[in-house]
Amino acid sequence: MKHNLKSDPPLLDPRDLDFLLYEWLEVQSLCTRERYREHSQETFDAVLDLTAELAVKRFAPHNKLGDTREPSIDPSGAVITVPEIKDALDALSATGLLAGEFGARLDGMQLPYVVSKAAFAWLQAANISTSAYAALTIANAHLLETYGTEDQIDRWVRPMLAGRFFGTMCLSEPGAGSSLADLTTRAIPHEDGTYRLTGSKMWITGGDHEISENIVHLVLARVPGGPAGVKGISLFIVPKYLVGDDGTIGERNDVALAGLNHKMGNRGTTNALLSLGDGTHRPDGRAGAVGYLVGRENQGLTQMFHMMNEARIGVGLAATALGYTAYLQSLDYARTRIQGRALGRPQEAPVPIITHPDVRRMLLAQKSYVEGALALGLYCARLLDEVDTADDPADRTRAELLLELLTPITKSWPSQWALEANSLAIQIHGGYGYTRDYHVEQLYRDNRLNAIHEGTHAIHGLDLLGRKVLMADGAALRLLLETFAATSKRATDASAPLRQWGERLHESAQRVAAVTEHVWRSGDPELALANASAYLEAVGHCVLAWIWLEQALAAEGKTGDFYDGKRHAARYFFTYELPKTDYQFDLLMSMDRTTLDLSENWF
Amino acid sequence: MKHNLKSDPPLLDPRDLDFLLYEWLEVQSLCTRERYREHSQETFDAVLDLTAELAVKRFAPHNKLGDTREPSIDPSGAVITVPEIKDALDALSATGLLAGEFGARLDGMQLPYVVSKAAFAWLQAANISTSAYAALTIANAHLLETYGTEDQIDRWVRPMLAGRFFGTMCLSEPGAGSSLADLTTRAIPHEDGTYRLTGSKMWITGGDHEISENIVHLVLARVPGGPAGVKGISLFIVPKYLVGDDGTIGERNDVALAGLNHKMGNRGTTNALLSLGDGTHRPDGRAGAVGYLVGRENQGLTQMFHMMNEARIGVGLAATALGYTAYLQSLDYARTRIQGRALGRPQEAPVPIITHPDVRRMLLAQKSYVEGALALGLYCARLLDEVDTADDPADRTRAELLLELLTPITKSWPSQWALEANSLAIQIHGGYGYTRDYHVEQLYRDNRLNAIHEGTHAIHGLDLLGRKVLMADGAALRLLLETFAATSKRATDASAPLRQWGERLHESAQRVAAVTEHVWRSGDPELALANASAYLEAVGHCVLAWIWLEQALAAEGKTGDFYDGKRHAARYFFTYELPKTDYQFDLLMSMDRTTLDLSENWF
Repeated sequence: MKHNLKSDPPLLDPRDLDFLLYEWLEVQSLCTRERYREHSQETFDAVLDLTAELAVKRFAPHNKLGDTREPSIDPSGAVITVPEIKDALDALSATGLLAGEFGARLDGMQLPYVVSKAAFAWLQAANISTSAYAALTIANAHLLETYGTEDQIDRWVRPMLAGRFFGTMCLSEPGAGSSLADLTTRAIPHEDGTYRLTGSKMWITGGDHEISENIVHLVLARVPGGPAGVKGISLFIVPKYLVGDDGTIGERNDVALAGLNHKMGNRGTTNALLSLGDGTHRPDGRAGAVGYLVGRENQGLTQMFHMMNEARIGVGLAATALGYTAYLQSLDYARTRIQGRALGRPQEAPVPIITHPDVRRMLLAQKSYVEGALALGLYCARLLDEVDTADDPADRTRAELLLELLTPITKSWPSQWALEANSLAIQIHGGYGYTRDYHVEQLYRDNRLNAIHEGTHAIHGLDLLGRKVLMADGAALRLLLETFAATSKRATDASAPLRQWGERLHESAQRVAAVTEHVWRSGDPELALANASAYLEAVGHCVLAWIWLEQALAAEGKTGDFYDGKRHAARYFFTYELPKTDYQFDLLMSMDRTTLDLSENWF
Repeated sequence: MKHNLKSDPPLLDPRDLDFLLYEWLEVQSLCTRERYREHSQETFDAVLDLTAELAVKRFAPHNKLGDTREPSIDPSGAVITVPEIKDALDALSATGLLAGEFGARLDGMQLPYVVSKAAFAWLQAANISTSAYAALTIANAHLLETYGTEDQIDRWVRPMLAGRFFGTMCLSEPGAGSSLADLTTRAIPHEDGTYRLTGSKMWITGGDHEISENIVHLVLARVPGGPAGVKGISLFIVPKYLVGDDGTIGERNDVALAGLNHKMGNRGTTNALLSLGDGTHRPDGRAGAVGYLVGRENQGLTQMFHMMNEARIGVGLAATALGYTAYLQSLDYARTRIQGRALGRPQEAPVPIITHPDVRRMLLAQKSYVEGALALGLYCARLLDEVDTADDPADRTRAELLLELLTPITKSWPSQWALEANSLAIQIHGGYGYTRDYHVEQLYRDNRLNAIHEGTHAIHGLDLLGRKVLMADGAALRLLLETFAATSKRATDASAPLRQWGERLHESAQRVAAVTEHVWRSGDPELALANASAYLEAVGHCVLAWIWLEQALAAEGKTGDFYDGKRHAARYFFTYELPKTDYQFDLLMSMDRTTLDLSENWF
């Protein structure tokens, strides 16, 4: 893409995106596939450049404004947001990019996911709050494209991809957050095939606003007579306004705003408590929120995971983008802020702080976190393309398996480490970084959400060690380790540091295999999973070591500052970061019972 | 102290304070010393109970209000703060506690520092912003008590201890933060012995407000003809209002408010950019801020370090208090929030989240961080008492050495790990923790400051590895390691886990000695200090392991939930935390040059 982008603040590095997409992932090779045959590197670049321009001109300028003037409820009960949010989303809709990943059937651009997600990262770096409305709408549309009827697709998906309707996902309730088995929203079937829903839904991002003509809620609820727990959950389309057969907006559905959540960050995005079927509105003269079943009853959780898995990759990229722009901002600051002198040279002039070793350490840490996380996120998006379009069905299956395994990591690792990049960005700015005159404090607040929503850090640890490494008799984990091995093998022919890093990665792979086997040998799930969060973090660091070796290999033999920077960030990661996994693996091997053998009265 | 304190939110644990003060540090034994002979455990408890009550009733209730309605400048140029801040500080002044640590000469209570700092931690946990005005006033008064003239003490210190005047410290300038060598504020001597100051001072906490009758700024500035760099810095009293010989408030000094900083947290505390001598006010008909030299010219940095070292212990305790209350709040939440089920028991009723192992891990981590940090902070305060009142002068010298070594750690370790406790408190609250309906998000924002002010994290790493371990030919470090050794030796007679922990501490002590010797053997300060931050963090964790073994020894042979909790937190620290030092020491031993051998163009 164009490298002469001028933006203040800097958002992403176009040169890095080119490297990741074209030199490492070789996404241009996708254009030989039927689905992408209208595309070329030129069309990809056009999309990336267009999105970057939108990000700089329409999304970034109101990022602080959205943080300062958060959504409020006016006397009529409507949710008021700063107009710049709607303007930016309208501009995005006008480009057709909301349908970028979608097929021609939906008038989409039929872009590869990997290009589309890379483009979207520009919007996330510019304004995570405003971009969230679009992200949820796209994910909602994907779900309905997969599971909805033709009529549902025409009625709900097409207006969403045109930017007229926005989408949400409604899972949590005030008493059921991580525990979906306990959700209580009820859906009573009506003779005309529709349902009437009653219940409360919490933490609904984009849950109410006047930005779009309508809001398409995807709601998990229970139908009478269904099984208890997660097997008795069904999925419904519950629009804010009913829509006639001709697509016209009809009467208000019984979905009432019960309150807005006031958050530490992500303030530009409305986050609502919704009351379904409380009689505030009476569609067709009766209480109850009208809902339309998606697919069959009691299949809701599986369907919602389609959206949730996509959302999890999106959360990882959101966290990455927030860390990435903060890194670039602190890099600019470090280059221009004059403070202190080189060690042992008190007589010389003060120097830019980028010359101080600890500032360089912080910048290298940030670079390794955010560029590594971006590479991982794009790799996962590339796997989505493999799942959909690989020529060999066996490749599709493999991609699906690997993606399932990587999903908890690609969601959680950036949520932890790109947040650390945000914290380091504040630190590099010193006292200035703690003020609202700069952007970095907001980015830190914005990013703190990402370890919480779409499954907490702990949930992803349990998912990885309790489900993903066990599924298909361990095939997904074997696939990951084979992937590591192939990279290590390529490194044996490379220059000295890469060979050593390949050996380190090989040792890490052996460690992952041994630890996984060891914890499950106990036959005691509670004990095996007691340190699942440590497992998530340690395996995550191994995955990132692999990502960095991959990048170093893609840079092998190439000269210039950019490639030297990639090599040096890889060196940083292998020197400073990968060794952190040792104590976590040691802990896991010890089958430590510290978190199990205690009384809660001891706190 | 009283254990039946009811407070919402919970602030500190009185039982823990009793344990630390009376069972571990045995502060009651101080009462045999001349300075403290009027005191007893009863008088200490009375002070602690009184402060706790003030914290609960006067400081905590407006903590969120102060965050929401930050200071502003009214049309007259005055800084407006919510009245609850002044009310709370007036209530504190009325108790006489501002003079708690001071001698009878200043009508003080002559309390040991360790008791006074413990009492003050209640106020910090309740409201860090409001307590900051008092903390700076006390530290300012200590400096002037040490270096000021009788007249200066009467004119400035007595009104500060009575709560009529507040104090500040003015070091930084817009272009000179960490680099005091570059400060440019000038002080021109006047024939009457006063000086006139001109310059800008940045980040002045409590820099302007109407809460007190007057503000006593302690300002670093240069007099003409002085040496360059830090050796040419002098210290001045620069009041907001001049004060007559009879103590009456006189005309406005030429100290003008140039702006308020708007911060991510600590919003209740004014933080100002001050302009000295810009002619906004013309005391005695002439421009220039009137300043009174403290001590002699060019001694300013040494004098200011008297205040700064105290402030650094205070920052550590502030960070600790913010983490401590967040820990207790998340503990309450974890006990009462019902969510999910025990593993493998999907049919049973949902359980409080405190039963989930990962929640217990987070609570244990928090407990080990905040109780450990509080113990360290009080230990350092106890060293201050030794410095002042130990019977044997050799003990005073030893205490001073050890305190100098521990100061960067007692400031930085809580700033890093109690902040992590704040982050875990949000995580335990889930989505609720991210909202402003709960307190934990504010505490996280408030605490992020502490790794920045009073010397950044990096500065303290350089201070520890570059100065403190080298001073007096390494005597301070030897003293620390001897202290570790004595504790390890006591553990050899204790029960099984303590013996093992004693061995681990012994190994850590050997590692610290070896690493320190190794990095300096290079003879290359730049290389030796390249990973000073890792050294700070690793030695910090070793110090905390020692603190936890000390606590476990103090609990040895005692039964009950409280002592079991102490033992279990020690187990957590030795199992989960101390091993983190391995990779940091390995890095230091490798004399890695990653942060040195790079071009800034590689970023």
